[in-house]
Amino acid sequence: MPAFDVVDLIRTKRDGGTLDDAQIDWLITAYTDGTVSDEQMSAMAMAVFFRGMRSAELARWTAAMIATGERLDFSALSRPTVDKHSTGGVGDKITLPLAPLVAACGVAVPQLSGRGLGHTGGTLDKLESIPGWRASLRNEEMLAQLESVGAVICAAGSGLAPADKKLYALRDVTATVDSIPLIASSIMSKKIAEGAGGLVLDVKVGSGAFMRDRDSATELAHTMVGLGADAGLRTVALLTDMSTPLGRTAGNALEVTEAINVLSGGGPSDVVELTVRLAREMLTLAGRDGIDPADTLADGRAMDVWRSMITAQGGDPDAALPRAREQEVIFADRSGTLTRLDALGVGVAAWRLGAGRARQTDPVQAGAGVEWHARPGDHVQSGHPLFTLHTDTPERFDRAREALAGAWEITDATYTPPPLILARIDTP
Amino acid sequence: MPAFDVVDLIRTKRDGGTLDDAQIDWLITAYTDGTVSDEQMSAMAMAVFFRGMRSAELARWTAAMIATGERLDFSALSRPTVDKHSTGGVGDKITLPLAPLVAACGVAVPQLSGRGLGHTGGTLDKLESIPGWRASLRNEEMLAQLESVGAVICAAGSGLAPADKKLYALRDVTATVDSIPLIASSIMSKKIAEGAGGLVLDVKVGSGAFMRDRDSATELAHTMVGLGADAGLRTVALLTDMSTPLGRTAGNALEVTEAINVLSGGGPSDVVELTVRLAREMLTLAGRDGIDPADTLADGRAMDVWRSMITAQGGDPDAALPRAREQEVIFADRSGTLTRLDALGVGVAAWRLGAGRARQTDPVQAGAGVEWHARPGDHVQSGHPLFTLHTDTPERFDRAREALAGAWEITDATYTPPPLILARIDTP
Repeated sequence: MPAFDVVDLIRTKRDGGTLDDAQIDWLITAYTDGTVSDEQMSAMAMAVFFRGMRSAELARWTAAMIATGERLDFSALSRPTVDKHSTGGVGDKITLPLAPLVAACGVAVPQLSGRGLGHTGGTLDKLESIPGWRASLRNEEMLAQLESVGAVICAAGSGLAPADKKLYALRDVTATVDSIPLIASSIMSKKIAEGAGGLVLDVKVGSGAFMRDRDSATELAHTMVGLGADAGLRTVALLTDMSTPLGRTAGNALEVTEAINVLSGGGPSDVVELTVRLAREMLTLAGRDGIDPADTLADGRAMDVWRSMITAQGGDPDAALPRAREQEVIFADRSGTLTRLDALGVGVAAWRLGAGRARQTDPVQAGAGVEWHARPGDHVQSGHPLFTLHTDTPERFDRAREALAGAWEITDATYTPPPLILARIDTP
Repeated sequence: MPAFDVVDLIRTKRDGGTLDDAQIDWLITAYTDGTVSDEQMSAMAMAVFFRGMRSAELARWTAAMIATGERLDFSALSRPTVDKHSTGGVGDKITLPLAPLVAACGVAVPQLSGRGLGHTGGTLDKLESIPGWRASLRNEEMLAQLESVGAVICAAGSGLAPADKKLYALRDVTATVDSIPLIASSIMSKKIAEGAGGLVLDVKVGSGAFMRDRDSATELAHTMVGLGADAGLRTVALLTDMSTPLGRTAGNALEVTEAINVLSGGGPSDVVELTVRLAREMLTLAGRDGIDPADTLADGRAMDVWRSMITAQGGDPDAALPRAREQEVIFADRSGTLTRLDALGVGVAAWRLGAGRARQTDPVQAGAGVEWHARPGDHVQSGHPLFTLHTDTPERFDRAREALAGAWEITDATYTPPPLILARIDTP
């Protein structure tokens, strides 16, 4: 591979030029091995923030990041595989019922997940509230579980796209995270390297999501769907509302309980709706259009897979889940309609109660979080409970209450909730 | 001093916001002591490249860089001090005759200079071609020489604005050099810290200069003059042409010889013109309007100071200067008027012959360089010498010829050279 002068490459991008394939391949490889320094890559990332990338550049950038690591291979499995990724939101526990549901319909679901950071929770943090459950699997264990159970939710190993891991850590400390091409290539490099046969993206938009406005979320979705297509990975994205939190709970064990309720045929209607819709998209990608996941959820087969999946990773599906030591209730101060419940406020409150972390290495409380007893559009009665806050460390209540203070509103207006699923973005 | 989150500060600048005084003070101090990492500062520098700085931000940024180091104090000297800075050009040896000329007029000239990088030469490299001359002086030696001789040209110590030294090295490897606020604050932080009573800037514009177009050069000049005013340093800038090289030579010993010719009352008219004009500006700033530096140049008093200045730093003003081992001549291929002589082409040729360096640590050849035997507007005769190339390493001739190939033109047109001094920019 020819060597380039990285200063020339940064200047090219800075001045609005285009990097060619050889330049991108060299840059990503040289950054991964340390030939290109962190300060040079951060200048490049900031230049990309301002100048963006053409779609050919971005596809190559993503491919180059994938090429720095291993790719998983599920071709030996007896069933098709489909993957799902959510860009993250408050109360987003959809992966928990979704993976066993789709597996129960005959499609294998490898879910390589992460831990939470900031006000959005992480799927692994949630599952780790189940006594005994472990997130780390070797590749062979993961493959064996996919064959036997059909679903696995585990920690992404460090072997997938190590360039992305290094670049993400750099972007995090240099204010270069929120660039659509860099977000898209970060997500898609890992998802393409995971090697599933199809991918459904849940791109969240609203106060509790990374993308606050619909235009940016749409652009991100189109960019990721395009990158999937470029890499031969059939990808579909749903744009879904995250102005209000999903379901009724935000917090690790609280969300596992809610997921189990959904798998038992109950649970909040929005969680059920999104789970079933995403399952349909995944089944379609796997060529299993004929199966209705709503039936599979209703008849308990998804719950059977859930129990097997938890057991296979050392968890006890019948164990009592941790409950926080302390609770406080916030009551409605008037009667009327709940016309606003802001996802960000709820997410920050759950985080402050101990459900989330500020740094990658912080511990989380399994029982901490927020329950809300009404959703926008519901009628509420003065003096009735509106929120229950949970934490092991009661000194956290005050700051959680502060986060919630401006996050809800009861009025006399009537209120029609916006649709949960805002758009579907498919390969053009 | 309060601590800030540097990621917030980068994001603020990235998104077009303004940093306040406390934030800037903290940023520069924290970068200098390593609390803010190189990768964070390079992201900030790239954000500044795109977003610029407001004049209040830039003044504070400059002041904060000065505050990281020492400030020289010339107040004990018996005469006023005036400093000069050129943004750099091809054949720009003006400092060599100028400093002794102004000193001979009764004003002390402390010239803290640098070495060359790329196609523009460095003042210290030129003087180091004089046998015995040394660039490094302690502050006390510099002060003593300013008092006794009136002029000193020496290496800038590491004590002045160390933040700038660190930041400049970072910008050099991250393609964030060519940002007007960063250039202006880099130059002015050092010049203000040097502590002279006035400053004359020679801002070059044209192919051989850092600023290629007049608008950018004008903006840089205004920015620097404004920073000087903010810091209480009376500053005047001349915008001067660098589309064609200055004088008749580019190269270290070649330029010293030319400077000595000027001090002897001869030398190329453009070098004499610019030297005298800059001297007038410096004398005016020092309150010595009544003295005509042209007289001081003509009567040999400037030459006397030159000899004392070189002697004081260990040099032998009578020693023969090094001459390159090999010469090649390029002849005019037709008769006519030399209508173009491109500064960049000449500068690159001199650099390739060994007069300049590609890296800070490369050695330079004292004798290498280019002489041109005609200037734009001169009539030339077919077959007569147009250039003489000098080098110790004859394998360099070919690439130097390549650099010169498109750099000159002989036509039948008449030609009137543009004015050397394009504009004067004073404090508003």
